[in-house]
Amino acid sequence: MITVICGGVGAARFLRALRHLDEQLPGGHAFAGPVVGVVNTGDDTTLHGLAISPDLDTITYTLAGAIDPVRGWGLVDETWVAMASLARYAAIRPDGSAAAPTWFNLGDRDLATHFYRTARLQEGATLTEVTGEIAAAWGLGEQLIPMTDDPVSTIVELADGREVSFQEYFVQLQHGVPIRGVRFAGATTAHLQPAAIRAIRDADVVVIAPSNPIVSIGPLRALEGFDPLLAARRDTVVAVSPIIGGAALKGPADRMLTELGMEASVVGVARLYAPIAGALVIDPVDAHLAAEVEAAGVRAIVVPSIMSSPEIGAELARATLAAAG
Amino acid sequence: MITVICGGVGAARFLRALRHLDEQLPGGHAFAGPVVGVVNTGDDTTLHGLAISPDLDTITYTLAGAIDPVRGWGLVDETWVAMASLARYAAIRPDGSAAAPTWFNLGDRDLATHFYRTARLQEGATLTEVTGEIAAAWGLGEQLIPMTDDPVSTIVELADGREVSFQEYFVQLQHGVPIRGVRFAGATTAHLQPAAIRAIRDADVVVIAPSNPIVSIGPLRALEGFDPLLAARRDTVVAVSPIIGGAALKGPADRMLTELGMEASVVGVARLYAPIAGALVIDPVDAHLAAEVEAAGVRAIVVPSIMSSPEIGAELARATLAAAG
Repeated sequence: MITVICGGVGAARFLRALRHLDEQLPGGHAFAGPVVGVVNTGDDTTLHGLAISPDLDTITYTLAGAIDPVRGWGLVDETWVAMASLARYAAIRPDGSAAAPTWFNLGDRDLATHFYRTARLQEGATLTEVTGEIAAAWGLGEQLIPMTDDPVSTIVELADGREVSFQEYFVQLQHGVPIRGVRFAGATTAHLQPAAIRAIRDADVVVIAPSNPIVSIGPLRALEGFDPLLAARRDTVVAVSPIIGGAALKGPADRMLTELGMEASVVGVARLYAPIAGALVIDPVDAHLAAEVEAAGVRAIVVPSIMSSPEIGAELARATLAAAG
Repeated sequence: MITVICGGVGAARFLRALRHLDEQLPGGHAFAGPVVGVVNTGDDTTLHGLAISPDLDTITYTLAGAIDPVRGWGLVDETWVAMASLARYAAIRPDGSAAAPTWFNLGDRDLATHFYRTARLQEGATLTEVTGEIAAAWGLGEQLIPMTDDPVSTIVELADGREVSFQEYFVQLQHGVPIRGVRFAGATTAHLQPAAIRAIRDADVVVIAPSNPIVSIGPLRALEGFDPLLAARRDTVVAVSPIIGGAALKGPADRMLTELGMEASVVGVARLYAPIAGALVIDPVDAHLAAEVEAAGVRAIVVPSIMSSPEIGAELARATLAAAG
């Protein structure tokens, strides 16, 4: 069993790469077997009464082959009629604020997923149950587990002192403003999902996906028991660096690391993950930093990490799993 | 001020007819002035987490000139992408039931209204506030007031003893099954909206719209204080019969009346409304029943009641208001 600790886009692509690996293994499915994703829910939000789980949906849609390849999020062949119609209501509040914000785009096809999730949660189902049902509806072979069924909200403290939700920072402000802190509201009382605990404990290999270490992997690490679970099996935990050549492939991970006083490099990532991962996969462009990564106490595995083709993705997946021995 | 007691489609058309009347009054706006609709919310439901108010929306869309003229509900030029996408999730429940039902069609454009209403209610706004905001967003001159801000649910007891929500009866079962009772859950503790009380008390004329007397006007009458308010000013309360020639123009009002042991005719309607209305407008096709209507203690006003053209609607509105003196 392979368990992948997941944020959104980077994790979705790594999970897809595991499938490519599977396809390429000649005859013997050396690494084939159950694949479990334990997924960040700190980005989850409620909009217009709808329960939105961005990372879970990005992974589901990617693995279903239904993700929009250009945007990298949401469904392909999407329409935007509902959101466009919301504009009528966006401007009528006495105080000018938007009760039903239009800055968070929900496509018409995508809405069905939020309808289903919201309806099931209101029936009393857990997010874990609903997530499994949605994955089944899309025909996924992988098991997806939200990190917790309890509410956890990533809160970003901007440099000017204001606190905003992750989605406000990421989508509304387009992560274009400096920050000075991140916290995870609810994390101290939320429970790491028991199925996630088992998946981490029982996996042959645990991979920390190339996701934002602060706001994608950070919420998982804020849950009691998460770091100790990985630390206890650190030699078979391999992280894939989301920082390549000092920059994030996508999103604000590089700037966030710098703004929070860390190094926006594979070395900074290695220091962050040293307590919980025995190895870090880095791109050849960062090979010159391998010694510094190892000085942080983490083995450096050099392999092309930009999953720009199925072949590169499969080789990244192979090398990552091999790094766990 | 004219206050109209409203269900959905028939009431919407009567309110629209009041506008036509207004346009046709040469120079002098004899009946022009504030128009208030006090609207049934017993049909309201929550679907996929969204707060749905079918009668309020039918009236709003009709008065905004945005109603679909063929269906008679929902928006013109509507698309149905979200609902079509929901089919994926409709069949995956272990017990075969649908958590997010596909039998209640919500158009993509229409969804924006439910998003806004749901978001505002979750912020703590009352349904009355939100209804006013939505009416303003559509530029309505009329004031629309939900009958109550408290939850009231029309429950239909089927002949086989099962109880279903109004929407299950009306939409899912397409009102095609016999019933033996109707009740209004929550009505005994719900409060008639204070603005509605004032609108009924202070109006020059109160019109009971040509809506289903059982399930559209019934929920209002189930609220404490509603019937006495109308009874106290009965001479200036005029009802428009929704039954013409023994049949409902739309919906199951005729069958419901029969199944509940009443007469599916203007006479049956007159007996139902006798405590609260001094006059009943009936179509010429029912002129032969005028004496029976009057025997029930209600003046019969004979005027074409099928609002098939603006002129007929305006004349119906004119005669209705004139009946109140």
